[in-house]
Amino acid sequence: MELLDKLNWRYATKAMNGEKVSQEKLDNIIEAASLAPTSSGLQPFEIIVVTNQEVKDEIRKIAWNQSVVSDCSHLLVFAAWDNYTEDRINYMFDLVNEVRGFKNEGWENYRQQLLGHYPKRSSEENFNHAARQAYIAFSQALSAAAFEGVDSTPMEGFDTDALDKILKLEDKGLKSCVMLPIGYRDADNDWLVNLKKVRKPKEDLVSVVD
Amino acid sequence: MELLDKLNWRYATKAMNGEKVSQEKLDNIIEAASLAPTSSGLQPFEIIVVTNQEVKDEIRKIAWNQSVVSDCSHLLVFAAWDNYTEDRINYMFDLVNEVRGFKNEGWENYRQQLLGHYPKRSSEENFNHAARQAYIAFSQALSAAAFEGVDSTPMEGFDTDALDKILKLEDKGLKSCVMLPIGYRDADNDWLVNLKKVRKPKEDLVSVVD
Repeated sequence: MELLDKLNWRYATKAMNGEKVSQEKLDNIIEAASLAPTSSGLQPFEIIVVTNQEVKDEIRKIAWNQSVVSDCSHLLVFAAWDNYTEDRINYMFDLVNEVRGFKNEGWENYRQQLLGHYPKRSSEENFNHAARQAYIAFSQALSAAAFEGVDSTPMEGFDTDALDKILKLEDKGLKSCVMLPIGYRDADNDWLVNLKKVRKPKEDLVSVVD
Repeated sequence: MELLDKLNWRYATKAMNGEKVSQEKLDNIIEAASLAPTSSGLQPFEIIVVTNQEVKDEIRKIAWNQSVVSDCSHLLVFAAWDNYTEDRINYMFDLVNEVRGFKNEGWENYRQQLLGHYPKRSSEENFNHAARQAYIAFSQALSAAAFEGVDSTPMEGFDTDALDKILKLEDKGLKSCVMLPIGYRDADNDWLVNLKKVRKPKEDLVSVVD
């Protein structure tokens, strides 16, 4: 299957050569992230695309000095809602009504169910839930990048609080979760490029209840 | 891009017709999940594939009576490690050494870093982190299903504690996160099949720092 070929080609690139990813490929990667399913369709995340070199260099300092943060073409930061609020829930339910062009009683009841449930929970519980949704989108972006022949580096190794400050995410009610520098590999300087991908044997990954 | 076409074709299927997914397609979906990148390569999750009808029917009762749980071909349950332990960390680091055929000082230092850090954290913090990794794999499985023309239903709407009991996940040190029934749509009985996919406009999803 072609997708598997691309996923096998992908690896966590450790050195990039600074070459730019085209706008078309970037748009496709963002579109794949946008198409990710999320719980109740709330899409509780945003993507910050950093291309400014000074900002990338600043982020590198709080990301274990990993060179790809500076040398990537675009640095995609996935940030989740810091909480579920009435406004945010209503925004998405209203948008669904607008796009589909009708109101539905079941859908409106479901809206009330979420409004009665989510805003009451702790912001920590809500952020943890929103972050999982951001990861679904992150993963689709990662697959799309591979599909486009664009290298990327899935990256949790950074100081989330520091990144939130650099990107002023608190003002937007967001907290950073995970980053995805995208670009092109610098194979001559990448220690990981030729090492085997290691995965658990299937018997340690999968069990069947038949 | 072909992947985007498939992701647009995909929707959260609300009715399935019971038709079986072939072993080859299932294997490809599992392989895609297996290829997902995870933090430090730990792959802190397992996939339980339920095909037993009685077990599916039992799970349906603790999943808001959603019919796809019974009518799917295979019910994929993504469960994350309930904690990071020394044994689990050592298992994956040893496997990397075995597969790559050599020991590396940097890698061994990194092992010690994780051993000194993860097992000390609360099991809740570790589970939350492991769950995010499971979502990366879940998302790749979802994309692969779409790529294979297999319908699926991303599903968080179930009682995780009850599911853990049904599948005896505690004995394996696992906690369920998210389910993915796969199969084929019963279009005549699916209220969602013809409704428009709703996504935030790009300006509410993406911001650029250039």
